[in-house]
Amino acid sequence: MGGDFAPEAAVKGAILAAQELQNEEQILLIGKEDVIHSLLKEYGYTGKNISVVNASQVIEMGEHPTKALTQKPDSSIAIGYGLLKAQKAVAFCSAGNTGAMLVGAMFSVKAIEGVLRPSIASFVPKLRGGFGVILDVGANADCKPEVLEQFGELGSIYAKYVLDIQNPKVGLMNLGEEEGKGTVNTQAAHQRLKANEIVNFIGNIEGRDLFNDKADVIVCDGYTGNIILKMAESLYDILSEKGIQDSFFDKFNYEAAGGSPILGINGNAVIGHGVSSPRAICNMVLQAQKMAASNISERFKKNYSA
Amino acid sequence: MGGDFAPEAAVKGAILAAQELQNEEQILLIGKEDVIHSLLKEYGYTGKNISVVNASQVIEMGEHPTKALTQKPDSSIAIGYGLLKAQKAVAFCSAGNTGAMLVGAMFSVKAIEGVLRPSIASFVPKLRGGFGVILDVGANADCKPEVLEQFGELGSIYAKYVLDIQNPKVGLMNLGEEEGKGTVNTQAAHQRLKANEIVNFIGNIEGRDLFNDKADVIVCDGYTGNIILKMAESLYDILSEKGIQDSFFDKFNYEAAGGSPILGINGNAVIGHGVSSPRAICNMVLQAQKMAASNISERFKKNYSA
Repeated sequence: MGGDFAPEAAVKGAILAAQELQNEEQILLIGKEDVIHSLLKEYGYTGKNISVVNASQVIEMGEHPTKALTQKPDSSIAIGYGLLKAQKAVAFCSAGNTGAMLVGAMFSVKAIEGVLRPSIASFVPKLRGGFGVILDVGANADCKPEVLEQFGELGSIYAKYVLDIQNPKVGLMNLGEEEGKGTVNTQAAHQRLKANEIVNFIGNIEGRDLFNDKADVIVCDGYTGNIILKMAESLYDILSEKGIQDSFFDKFNYEAAGGSPILGINGNAVIGHGVSSPRAICNMVLQAQKMAASNISERFKKNYSA
Repeated sequence: MGGDFAPEAAVKGAILAAQELQNEEQILLIGKEDVIHSLLKEYGYTGKNISVVNASQVIEMGEHPTKALTQKPDSSIAIGYGLLKAQKAVAFCSAGNTGAMLVGAMFSVKAIEGVLRPSIASFVPKLRGGFGVILDVGANADCKPEVLEQFGELGSIYAKYVLDIQNPKVGLMNLGEEEGKGTVNTQAAHQRLKANEIVNFIGNIEGRDLFNDKADVIVCDGYTGNIILKMAESLYDILSEKGIQDSFFDKFNYEAAGGSPILGINGNAVIGHGVSSPRAICNMVLQAQKMAASNISERFKKNYSA
């Protein structure tokens, strides 16, 4: 029921995604069941990969996350996280209220023990093809050095197991390449990442290195990552409006990845863009499926239980 | 003598700029005079708007700024700031060592009394045409709220008198529009800017608002501004390599503005890109001329003497 074009876009997107699924795989569409059933019928869906879970309440886009989750235990977000926690779903995604998606994760499945701050990651198209991962993109505006260090770990594990990048290169977003450059926090994070034995730290990267081959995992605080992400999205919009088409810049379209995964929680969750189209929803579901297939949440847990 | 293509690019750029000058206006080319004179001859310059000031030393691009300035009092940067301080030049610009340009300003003409942190500004092309100004882009990685507030003032005064924007709209770069969003510092800066009587504060802006009409002056710390600037430059490079030409994106080329002014010091100074081409040098000189003509340094002083 989440997103500006819900529930139509979500149902259409689920139907698109269902075409890519194996027999035993199920998409649970959570929301007002009568509405969803009638949409499935309207769109002519007759397959067996979609089932419906009723949720009588809806958290609106503008609602205060914590308040809404407390007051609406029968909302699709609350129920979705309930299914994730009970392991009745292997992944949960929604294009609904971003704050509620994040708070819901922290209240239900919770952060993995040892993870200081779960992070919202996003994808950066690479000129060589494929994507890199950038984190954080908005969950944590201010980040201490030890949090930035952990983002390097979380991003590495994600890049390795979900993006299939062997020995992913981790770069720290900064205003210069030299190790003494940057804010007090990035300077300290640099030293921590350098000493970290899990990550393949290649040093500082700059704004000009986002799309090149220097780093597969880009570490920054959520304030910076959010600005980078929204700037890239706006450039895609500007190019589109100008009628400029290019396969590289097409990947700036948020629809390509479909959503931003939450890393460092006990479960697989993906947050979609408020304006999610059916194509975006479809890709978000397939991304969530890939996270579940690679058992990424368990990989994180294993790393922090050691 | 500064920049990767010095002294050739600087001399060629000065010749281009000289064509735009009035009779009485002079470009002082500071550097090894024999080299400069022979280049002026080689390029066939016979006008009266360029004269040469000898400087026997050169600060190289990789040198430590403070050390280099102390050890090389006869470098073009040291002599240039000397001329600016002695009011024998109305503006000084160089594509040389950025750190030395900034430190040189602080050592010679110094910060205006009342200005907490002088700032390096840059330009953001606007979809409607023209440019906005963004500051800081690298002089101050970490910025306290009161420093961000002053950037709003410095940027406003610059936009009004140099860019001819009446009542410039000032936006605070942030990860959300709501006033409670952001880092601890941007939240506090928001409150200060809101209460500030000099600036026309329009609130938070996001990464997607850089190129639209929301703000003429974009306030951020130097870490963030530097990342935004370099990301925009790299996008221009990517588009160019792909052969995509567009009048809006052409303005992402650093050559269009030619350099980044230092705001808040007792004099007009502009720092050029290390890779400055003749066209960039020309535009940097014309930008410096405009700063001098609008008496911008005096406008800043007047604001802080009140």
